[in-house]
Amino acid sequence: MRRPETSDNAISSGVTPEFALIAKHFDRPAKKALLGVGDDCALWLPTAGQTLAVSTDTLVSGVHFFANVDAAKLGHKALAVNLSDLAAMGATPCVFTLALSLPLALPLTLPPPLPPPLPRVDDAWLAGFAAGLFSLAAQHDIELIGGDTTRGPLAIGITVIGEVDPRTALRRDRARVGDDIWVSGNLGGASLALRRMGADGSNAGVSAALLEKLELPQPRIALGVELRGIAHAAIDISDGLVADLGHIASRSGLKATVFWKDIPRHPALDAEALSVQQACGLAGGDDYELCFSAPASSRAAISGVAERQGLPLSRIGSFSPGDAEVEVIDVNGERLWLPARGFDHFSAQRVSADEA
Amino acid sequence: MRRPETSDNAISSGVTPEFALIAKHFDRPAKKALLGVGDDCALWLPTAGQTLAVSTDTLVSGVHFFANVDAAKLGHKALAVNLSDLAAMGATPCVFTLALSLPLALPLTLPPPLPPPLPRVDDAWLAGFAAGLFSLAAQHDIELIGGDTTRGPLAIGITVIGEVDPRTALRRDRARVGDDIWVSGNLGGASLALRRMGADGSNAGVSAALLEKLELPQPRIALGVELRGIAHAAIDISDGLVADLGHIASRSGLKATVFWKDIPRHPALDAEALSVQQACGLAGGDDYELCFSAPASSRAAISGVAERQGLPLSRIGSFSPGDAEVEVIDVNGERLWLPARGFDHFSAQRVSADEA
Repeated sequence: MRRPETSDNAISSGVTPEFALIAKHFDRPAKKALLGVGDDCALWLPTAGQTLAVSTDTLVSGVHFFANVDAAKLGHKALAVNLSDLAAMGATPCVFTLALSLPLALPLTLPPPLPPPLPRVDDAWLAGFAAGLFSLAAQHDIELIGGDTTRGPLAIGITVIGEVDPRTALRRDRARVGDDIWVSGNLGGASLALRRMGADGSNAGVSAALLEKLELPQPRIALGVELRGIAHAAIDISDGLVADLGHIASRSGLKATVFWKDIPRHPALDAEALSVQQACGLAGGDDYELCFSAPASSRAAISGVAERQGLPLSRIGSFSPGDAEVEVIDVNGERLWLPARGFDHFSAQRVSADEA
Repeated sequence: MRRPETSDNAISSGVTPEFALIAKHFDRPAKKALLGVGDDCALWLPTAGQTLAVSTDTLVSGVHFFANVDAAKLGHKALAVNLSDLAAMGATPCVFTLALSLPLALPLTLPPPLPPPLPRVDDAWLAGFAAGLFSLAAQHDIELIGGDTTRGPLAIGITVIGEVDPRTALRRDRARVGDDIWVSGNLGGASLALRRMGADGSNAGVSAALLEKLELPQPRIALGVELRGIAHAAIDISDGLVADLGHIASRSGLKATVFWKDIPRHPALDAEALSVQQACGLAGGDDYELCFSAPASSRAAISGVAERQGLPLSRIGSFSPGDAEVEVIDVNGERLWLPARGFDHFSAQRVSADEA
């Protein structure tokens, strides 16, 4: 019932040994910010005339990740899922804050007095987490400007701030009749990895390439930036193609029709039954590819983007007037009827008890 | 291991009954933002030339509040502690994001399947929380622009963005030799309330006025704004006067000397032993008053501020060259020797097991 650990905009106020340890890993001098961690607020001057794009996402142990996941991969992913939201807006990321809730014990060299699914958070864990986090931050030239650390069940909350011209921002409500529907990369790999893992997070039987899809997603920042002025609407696929494309359909008031044969699936899905392919490809979350709409006149430009990025961009369908819904057409040209709540029952197989 | 609830910048993606319920309470149309909740990011255009002040704070059930605290008060406090950080920078608050981790059950009309110290989160709880949150937001004319909801142990993370001219921002590292040290309001009320409460959060023997200090702190936004150009350095007192003033001393490289007789204490402390008065007055957290430094030439201006705000501002000491530390002088003119870690052992009496 006290909060020395959240007294300021420092990741740690450094008053106790464990928080001094956290400061060692996270407190870094400001470069972009006028004033970074360690005061009441960070001070940061945005580019004149730019609109800010702000997004926040929290990952909770046992809900969004296994307690035994590699800390560096967790650091990467916690930032990646936030950057992915900026990518889907076509925004350029700038700065971020980090709110860490850690199951800390004192001293850190002893195991924490908390039951699973909480990992042991010690110096090595913090070093790994920071390495994964700052590595991705460096790739995108963005800076941690503040945050806080609290004791509690392990959770990582990040708020990321980017910039975008609102005239070319890739809003969900901007799809137009006749727009092509596109998707980047391939889908279903992350959810297939999850299906193949044990309920305890064991991954002995899962290939490294597949695990990487789940644990080290790549936010499509460069793609989002290039799509400004080319695409109309975009979203990142965190909950599965049908659910996320459904958000564009809903907010744009249009019907989305996509063709199963054209949807790029992760190659490892070839070995699976069609039902698994469709569950992972249509409803598998955590891939963080972009799904976007663009007029037919943009096709050549989009091919150019794909080539420059070295990233496949697949045209999978189009928008038309009609009920705001997503229609999937199977290889026989017939509508694939999806369960009312999508494929939740597939993707939910690994959720922890409190998600049931 | 799935995250439909964090797919976008909506407090809720509305795909399940419980999250539709959350949407009912939290999704509101944008007024300040170009694009509010419901897309990948919020879009918001700051005032041209203004520097952004960004701060983030998370409150965790059982660590920062009792599970049985009134939901509306919790909604107020979660935002208040963040606004307090802006106040301490002299920034004007603009927009905020909300990351809710909720111990949700399905349906919400049943008690959640989780042990204490988690409250029962149902429609009435959410309505109360939203009422407290948006009431304080309305008082400061600020807008919720996005966030997410996850299932997990109850925690509330808020990131608030404000604006300030960096030339008059009340940074911690700006105290100067000879500056007076001031504090707003009175201190120790919140920690005295906590001492008088039962370990289970029961408050039968605590006066309403004292409870309000703990549960409904008032962020000193208007004071911070008026102190621009008058004060040099400022901090909000969340962890106790000595600890927080110590941050100014440390970052300014100066010695702070304050006089016990001049420190304004909550009137309810008069009935307590001197040791309790000092523990609460010097090390009691959660008051969220401002402590600031200003030159002697600002005394008349500060009196004017106090009068306009209807808020006592007390001059309690001054800064001088020397070791970066806080020196408290008792009524006999002698130095009061504080425990090495301040009064942690006093204020920590109510902390939950994982804080021990």
